[in-house]
Amino acid sequence: MTMAWQDYLIRNQDTYIRQLLDFLRISSISSLPENKEDVQHAAEWVAERLRTAGIEHVEILPTGGHPVVYGDWLHAGDKPTIMIYGHFDTQPVDPLDLWDDPPFEPTIKDDRVYARGASDDKGNMLAPIIAAEAILKCNGKLPVNLKFLFEGQEEIGSPQLPEWVAAQKERLACDLVVSADGGQWGEDQPAILTSLRGICALQIDVKGAESDVHSGIYGGSILNPIQALARILASMHGEDGRILVEGFYDKVRAISEIEQSQIEAVPFDAASYQQVLGVDALFGEPGYSTYERSWVRPTLEFNGIWGGFQGEGVKTVIPSVAHAKISCRLVPDQQPDQILGLIKKHVEKFTPSGAAITVREDPSQADPYAIPYDHPGNQAAYTVHQALYGKAPLYMRNGGTIPVCALFQQVLNVYTVNFAFGLNDENIHAPNEFWRLNSFRRAGKAHGMLFESLSKKLTAGNHSVKP
Amino acid sequence: MTMAWQDYLIRNQDTYIRQLLDFLRISSISSLPENKEDVQHAAEWVAERLRTAGIEHVEILPTGGHPVVYGDWLHAGDKPTIMIYGHFDTQPVDPLDLWDDPPFEPTIKDDRVYARGASDDKGNMLAPIIAAEAILKCNGKLPVNLKFLFEGQEEIGSPQLPEWVAAQKERLACDLVVSADGGQWGEDQPAILTSLRGICALQIDVKGAESDVHSGIYGGSILNPIQALARILASMHGEDGRILVEGFYDKVRAISEIEQSQIEAVPFDAASYQQVLGVDALFGEPGYSTYERSWVRPTLEFNGIWGGFQGEGVKTVIPSVAHAKISCRLVPDQQPDQILGLIKKHVEKFTPSGAAITVREDPSQADPYAIPYDHPGNQAAYTVHQALYGKAPLYMRNGGTIPVCALFQQVLNVYTVNFAFGLNDENIHAPNEFWRLNSFRRAGKAHGMLFESLSKKLTAGNHSVKP
Repeated sequence: MTMAWQDYLIRNQDTYIRQLLDFLRISSISSLPENKEDVQHAAEWVAERLRTAGIEHVEILPTGGHPVVYGDWLHAGDKPTIMIYGHFDTQPVDPLDLWDDPPFEPTIKDDRVYARGASDDKGNMLAPIIAAEAILKCNGKLPVNLKFLFEGQEEIGSPQLPEWVAAQKERLACDLVVSADGGQWGEDQPAILTSLRGICALQIDVKGAESDVHSGIYGGSILNPIQALARILASMHGEDGRILVEGFYDKVRAISEIEQSQIEAVPFDAASYQQVLGVDALFGEPGYSTYERSWVRPTLEFNGIWGGFQGEGVKTVIPSVAHAKISCRLVPDQQPDQILGLIKKHVEKFTPSGAAITVREDPSQADPYAIPYDHPGNQAAYTVHQALYGKAPLYMRNGGTIPVCALFQQVLNVYTVNFAFGLNDENIHAPNEFWRLNSFRRAGKAHGMLFESLSKKLTAGNHSVKP
Repeated sequence: MTMAWQDYLIRNQDTYIRQLLDFLRISSISSLPENKEDVQHAAEWVAERLRTAGIEHVEILPTGGHPVVYGDWLHAGDKPTIMIYGHFDTQPVDPLDLWDDPPFEPTIKDDRVYARGASDDKGNMLAPIIAAEAILKCNGKLPVNLKFLFEGQEEIGSPQLPEWVAAQKERLACDLVVSADGGQWGEDQPAILTSLRGICALQIDVKGAESDVHSGIYGGSILNPIQALARILASMHGEDGRILVEGFYDKVRAISEIEQSQIEAVPFDAASYQQVLGVDALFGEPGYSTYERSWVRPTLEFNGIWGGFQGEGVKTVIPSVAHAKISCRLVPDQQPDQILGLIKKHVEKFTPSGAAITVREDPSQADPYAIPYDHPGNQAAYTVHQALYGKAPLYMRNGGTIPVCALFQQVLNVYTVNFAFGLNDENIHAPNEFWRLNSFRRAGKAHGMLFESLSKKLTAGNHSVKP
């Protein structure tokens, strides 16, 4: 008698956790040139793991930037073809001194694994591989055709992926993408994700004197770059938090009634939201709720600023340079290029006369993304969640960006169902990132069930995307 | 036949330069805790050098912070008592990558010595020691009573010195202080310094969430600390450069006619001023000339700013904290405490509701300082400069701060004549600091001549300071 794949998953739990720890030990930070080899190393780890699972045609493919890993299993005949997406790169780790344990020495405490990349996205992307392995080992075949596409530069906005996906259209053809990058509402509350924000980013560089100069000798007689930068940044928001860059909101779609009611159905507890963040008050665009602000309204956030002396005590210099990093989260129908253009115009307008200011656009950009809440892929996910959690999922939005969702829509003409198990308190992109091992156990089973559900709900060749 | 002390100086030139290089090898950065022992080491070097010169009662004395070095020679009977002042600590060296040679490995190129502290103040403070040595070796006695007071924390604003000087009033009693810290107008143009600006400094800390958080998940829903900080900083100056902190200019003395004419007599070449700085334009308070702005008008300058991600590429965080360092140069009759109070009030007024903002005053403070241009000490300096340069000195101001000038005035009831040989292009407080060896040779001789001139012009016991 063959074992049920669900039992196979349970029996091999410890092995899978050990494998996850191995994966988390690889410091695959995609934004740092010095970690380039680690990203390659992570790709090799993923390729080997796919092969072990029984996935075929596994290859590490160059993109011009960090590589992608591809593999497939295509023996399900006229069943739909599903492409699993995830990423094996991670965010940087600074400020390192705020981590309780080294970010690339995974530590298990209270059934949680602490490491950079644990929740975003190594744990989540490992789960569907394990699910496929379990079903293949137990049943000898999968209920759908599967393709796997794992990339190594999601955290820097996947700069080479659009060109690469366009060139690989045949290989990547499918009926639906299932993204194993993202999260659920809560430990006991599943959710269906229906939109993601896009992104664009830039850096402002202000140059004053050729080198830092003495603030006693020259103070008062030349423009201080920090002064010019502060003036420009301060001009970008009103006191009430509204973005004052001219035209910024022009293309923003109004929130529909059904959207509004779905957002209102998501329980919101201001006290616990504030407690997680450690803030005394919330703040944002007037006239919108917190979820509206962070899910379906656009932002302009300062991600970093620096210039002059940062040490202990006093250094009486007028700095030579000052810099700021800005990124915007975009919503339909804003576009990265359009918004970058508006910001550049704004910076020009607020540049003090005589100041030498450069605006550098970052190559990482993504359009905003939305999928109909009742798409068959979402219906399949709904069924799985309902069964797994014993509870109807919420219809949620996410204020973050998964650039590939818009990309797959545009280039492959397919929607992406986001099906992943991170939770909001897991410090992703921050010190002490962790993932619940319970989410790992649940995710493996969930992906297996999703394959089975999609096998019934989704018709091959019927995946057209609404314009 | 005994040798003239002037010839003795010439004969020993190479030895003195070698000694200067030894002194410059000591990385006596007073602002960095990790360089504490180096500051102590510099004190020991200075004490030993004073003893070798024939100075008596040499001691390294504790202050609670970095030590001072004291020594004296008091055998000139009813001649005036002059106290020489200088400092053996240096500024920090960052940004280190902009130095052509390591800052504490002095390098001689084109008759200049490149090293941190070369011009400010190790070269300048060594000169009067050498002068005293030469006169003692050649004449067996000095034309005035001499006291030497060298400190190790000038670059951090001499926090412990006020209390220490007050406690050592007897030991330090004198008719005039000669400060070997500062500079001249040009290689061929001497100057008499008649005022220095005071200083106060503070740090603003803005705190948002407990740690950096994901700008996708939380962007738009909480206050960004950089946004709050930029708003506060931008509120401190008008677009025209005028300081908008309420009451900031209230106590500022109007510029007198004689002062204005002395400042106008100082040649100003905007093109070369800009060229030295590498800027295309000058900028400052409307209605004042560049020298007025940088010498006799107060400033509020941003010395540093930081928060969030500063690396290459993009990191999509809302930073947990943002910081700015501010220092003000003060002119009569502003006072550090008064100005710090006004800035604190201003920050409070412009703090967005819900923002957690702390203002930390820096202990380094100094009152502004002014000496009558025709004081007998200045007359003596005038005579020396006239003889040495063959040219009448200009009456100059300096926008920098030498905190001890106001301190000696208040506690010892004596004026300070600034008598030193740094030049404006020598990159003090900046990368690639250097000193002209020609200034070193000139400074030794000048101090010897000054001792002789003061012996005639200054009456012992007649040094009362105008209130």
